[in-house]
Amino acid sequence: MRERNSDNRRPGKPTRRDDRGPGGGQFAGRQFGSKRFGKPKASPWRSAPRGDGPVILYGWHTVKAALENPQRRFHRLLATENAARRLTEDNVKLPVAPELVRPEDIAAIAGAKAVHQGLYAAADPLPSPELEDVATRGIVLVLDQVTDPHNVGAILRSAAAFGVRAAVTTERHSPEASGVLAKAASGALEYVPIATVVNLARALEELRELNMFLVGLDSTGEADLAAMSLSAPLALVIGAEGKGLRRLTRVHCDVIARLALPGRITSLNVSNATAIALYVASAKLAAPV
Amino acid sequence: MRERNSDNRRPGKPTRRDDRGPGGGQFAGRQFGSKRFGKPKASPWRSAPRGDGPVILYGWHTVKAALENPQRRFHRLLATENAARRLTEDNVKLPVAPELVRPEDIAAIAGAKAVHQGLYAAADPLPSPELEDVATRGIVLVLDQVTDPHNVGAILRSAAAFGVRAAVTTERHSPEASGVLAKAASGALEYVPIATVVNLARALEELRELNMFLVGLDSTGEADLAAMSLSAPLALVIGAEGKGLRRLTRVHCDVIARLALPGRITSLNVSNATAIALYVASAKLAAPV
Repeated sequence: MRERNSDNRRPGKPTRRDDRGPGGGQFAGRQFGSKRFGKPKASPWRSAPRGDGPVILYGWHTVKAALENPQRRFHRLLATENAARRLTEDNVKLPVAPELVRPEDIAAIAGAKAVHQGLYAAADPLPSPELEDVATRGIVLVLDQVTDPHNVGAILRSAAAFGVRAAVTTERHSPEASGVLAKAASGALEYVPIATVVNLARALEELRELNMFLVGLDSTGEADLAAMSLSAPLALVIGAEGKGLRRLTRVHCDVIARLALPGRITSLNVSNATAIALYVASAKLAAPV
Repeated sequence: MRERNSDNRRPGKPTRRDDRGPGGGQFAGRQFGSKRFGKPKASPWRSAPRGDGPVILYGWHTVKAALENPQRRFHRLLATENAARRLTEDNVKLPVAPELVRPEDIAAIAGAKAVHQGLYAAADPLPSPELEDVATRGIVLVLDQVTDPHNVGAILRSAAAFGVRAAVTTERHSPEASGVLAKAASGALEYVPIATVVNLARALEELRELNMFLVGLDSTGEADLAAMSLSAPLALVIGAEGKGLRRLTRVHCDVIARLALPGRITSLNVSNATAIALYVASAKLAAPV
């Protein structure tokens, strides 16, 4: 029931250290040896870790990709000495001075189950793009209230692997692009812009007006995706775990397609189904007509 | 580090109610209205819920498929009235008398996060098949220490959807076919037998001697899976999250294949990668030569 509102983003937050000189964020000597972590400061994101506030990013690929994304605005970066050394070795330019910490310091704030791999960051969420800017070519992925953050993260990772232009999600009933989702996305948040919309049916109408072909994916679909002729720009519309596509989503699609599954189970985990659909669709769009 | 040992299985456990008359397990009147749940009995599986003891199954598809599997030996079945009614409507014959409970009673033992959908069972694990019995045709999936139970469950679900003959896993460093894994498998545990082996390299040797073609899947693979010619019986060998295939696993494969990914991320979530590989391989094996 959490709402994300683009008005709450603070892209120009003054705490960002973008006024430093060249290389100032690259583990400058005084930062590299210091251990600033452990003294919790009164900062606004601590009281609002979900929703309006900054997003949480941890894990090697997740944080490294965010550091390499010039659009990300960082509030804070925690790194173990090992992780900081690897970032230097990989020539990652740091937009914010890292606080060097021990692994258990990150576990204490990210949670014991978080596989943080020595990196943790708080950053502003990325801006939501306009539909007209992402609907021009290739594939756009539309998620109709897919709720599990592991699933959404894995879906975004596969989307990035297949060069998907953008994802479209609903403001409500979608997990935040933070924490578990960001870790599962493995850096994909930086490569696949997420357009959040209030009304998905209206967004689908807009995508159609922008000349997108809208294919809903459902195990009860009338057509086998692999047997269909597909054309770009293409929107693949994915339903929620268990529930599938909502009725109103369904009627706004041009066609409902299924994956041909020869075995005894006829419906897949939503991220697995999406991965196969992306494989099929991107192969079709890449093939010479 | 938990070990599963086939000696610990108790396929002929006397508590099984297979001596009842026809329909005796089908919500016989005295059971349907009773509320036996809530009085914890001293039973061996309570003290050993993981490892040697029975496995835990919850969720509609998971428990329904298990109830329909004549090989499953049940210790206990808990059902809400709604779920019990649905089972009756679906003509599911019950091998054990259900204990009618409230949803919160199941949540109390399965955990608040478990999406149990009104069904919970304790049952014996299924027997591990011999490799020579599963390596005769089609596809066998070999999991090299894939550790996350959600991933393994989703992989087994996709395996069942593509008619995979069996999965091979290691006794150690593999999650138990129970609980979260069983729920994510969505009934696939009943359709895809799992052969657990002590030494995976030796198992791969055995599969090769049984004429299987062994294809390891890795993002660094030398060949594009979609461009290879594949023949049955085929073993697809899948590496662990993050680590991929172990060196000794790798050298025992006939070839290491990759998925061609055109985007900025070149490695997928392991269950997503497996789903695509199964799609590609099963399409190739089904195609007329």
